[in-house]
Amino acid sequence: MTSQPHMISRLRCLPLSAAALLTLWATGATAQPAGDPLPSWNDTASRHAIVAFVDKVTRAGSPDFVAVAERIATFDNDGTLWSEQPMYVQAFFAFDRVKALAPQHPEWRQKEPFASILKGDVKAALAGGERALADIIMATHAGTTTEEFEGVVRDWIGTAKHPKTGRLHTEMVFQPMLELLTYLRANGFKTFIVSGGGIEFMRPWAEKVYGIPPEQVVGSSIKTRFEVRDGTPVLLRLPELNFVDDKAGKPVGINMHIGRRPIAAFGNSDGDLQMLQWTAAGPGPRFCLYVHHTDAAREWAYDRSSHVGSLDKGLDEARAKGWVVVDMKNDWKVIFP
Amino acid sequence: MTSQPHMISRLRCLPLSAAALLTLWATGATAQPAGDPLPSWNDTASRHAIVAFVDKVTRAGSPDFVAVAERIATFDNDGTLWSEQPMYVQAFFAFDRVKALAPQHPEWRQKEPFASILKGDVKAALAGGERALADIIMATHAGTTTEEFEGVVRDWIGTAKHPKTGRLHTEMVFQPMLELLTYLRANGFKTFIVSGGGIEFMRPWAEKVYGIPPEQVVGSSIKTRFEVRDGTPVLLRLPELNFVDDKAGKPVGINMHIGRRPIAAFGNSDGDLQMLQWTAAGPGPRFCLYVHHTDAAREWAYDRSSHVGSLDKGLDEARAKGWVVVDMKNDWKVIFP
Repeated sequence: MTSQPHMISRLRCLPLSAAALLTLWATGATAQPAGDPLPSWNDTASRHAIVAFVDKVTRAGSPDFVAVAERIATFDNDGTLWSEQPMYVQAFFAFDRVKALAPQHPEWRQKEPFASILKGDVKAALAGGERALADIIMATHAGTTTEEFEGVVRDWIGTAKHPKTGRLHTEMVFQPMLELLTYLRANGFKTFIVSGGGIEFMRPWAEKVYGIPPEQVVGSSIKTRFEVRDGTPVLLRLPELNFVDDKAGKPVGINMHIGRRPIAAFGNSDGDLQMLQWTAAGPGPRFCLYVHHTDAAREWAYDRSSHVGSLDKGLDEARAKGWVVVDMKNDWKVIFP
Repeated sequence: MTSQPHMISRLRCLPLSAAALLTLWATGATAQPAGDPLPSWNDTASRHAIVAFVDKVTRAGSPDFVAVAERIATFDNDGTLWSEQPMYVQAFFAFDRVKALAPQHPEWRQKEPFASILKGDVKAALAGGERALADIIMATHAGTTTEEFEGVVRDWIGTAKHPKTGRLHTEMVFQPMLELLTYLRANGFKTFIVSGGGIEFMRPWAEKVYGIPPEQVVGSSIKTRFEVRDGTPVLLRLPELNFVDDKAGKPVGINMHIGRRPIAAFGNSDGDLQMLQWTAAGPGPRFCLYVHHTDAAREWAYDRSSHVGSLDKGLDEARAKGWVVVDMKNDWKVIFP
């Protein structure tokens, strides 16, 4: 487990990446050969590598054949399945939640970091560092039952829009990755999310958006406690960190939840590096892929020096080990659905 | 979570239930109607209740129809899927492991609780209470990589035999429950183990024995740490408790791993009560079942005063709420395969 709680620290850099902003992109559907499972992927090396791997692990008689039960594929979420700029979607949620809860907390108008959030000054809110971030997370993610929190997330994700694109966040998922998820499942893979984001923040919509059911979502979490309230059992969300599913935490989370080593893993940042290392180190055929954000026109372009989703060591290791590095600009015909 | 670590405390009562010992049983296969999915179940109220529930949640047009994705069924392991007397199988494993590791620990011959275990005096070994139990667990379950531990468990479970029956522990699973697992899966249910036992102790054999894959096993755990050793990534098992999946921990573990509330839950002790309460409290059709050990001739007979697998409060609540209580002696034609 990382010593620094990522679910919190990942919020720290929110307003800093404004330089790389989305401008315009083309989403026009292009004609595809009938039955092409990956119509949004250009005919480049990335696509070839994906198809070749799936073929060799699924074709009867292949020396690299892998039994269906062992076809485990894990996907990071932020920056791998949907956009993460200029800040993680869960950070948008946390700030909106502070505003929504403010009427029940009149003291927040005088109390940082809430006072600055309510004034719209995110930078000042975050001047308080880790302590401020922990306060924001716990004030917005704890204190409800699990069912209440699920309802809050469902309501928010159904209406909240990205400030730059005006789209729902769930419309800013990557069409080529949706096709890849479907393609893998059609070939007997079980697909999991393994994200630094909150497990209970993703589960309410991951099945609808990605086709990934709650029991296949691994993420960071706070503790819960079982209580019987007036005869009704509830799980209460506590203001206490339980697990940080990032960096060296990702293999730990994979082992805890899945109990098998993936044969394929997909990420976009250094936060995914240990998941890819763990995947690559298993016996038999392995597939590791980084999504490299290279498209400032249609999405964002960032890597080594990004405050959100930095890809630095991972990029070097991917090149050294021959992992697939998707060039979003050249490999993907469209970005969003 | 419980304040008392059950994975440890469950070991405390090992030698005390010797009064109720297995004698003989008949396992002769009996003729069944072709296609009967539950041939080892007598034609009693328990069987009727199971079949009626499955029918109403799966029949198209039924007012109680439940979508396949929501057909989650959770099963306790010890005492529900296999025998747990005179002590938990994992306790047999821990003691055998102390003996196997003893040559590497010459100091154990002078050090409790190990010295007493090596002399075969379990009662004296456990005189040290919680501290002794924690020492046994950590000495036998931590200090290896996850892959090494998996190999140790596989080797042990493939050869270790129950001291009274002379059978492999995996041959002391309950045939009617195996049929029930298969029957539920054939009706679109996803079956999970939710056990106070160690998650990494169950996963190596649960798929072969129960048809339940590693990603559908929830249990107690110690912490792990990701490390790169001489270029090879490993997960090291640490002598530190991570999660206790028992009593009030069961709904917590279910929420963490599954993220949906079961519609059916199966247990045999008060350690399962909160899982059954959590299951029963959801909306729509629900099914809760206790296996009541009533067959001293073919297995063991115990409930309220048992040191292992006590069923006291749960028995009262089951009767008050109309949950199914399986009478092993009268409801099951055979116990073991």
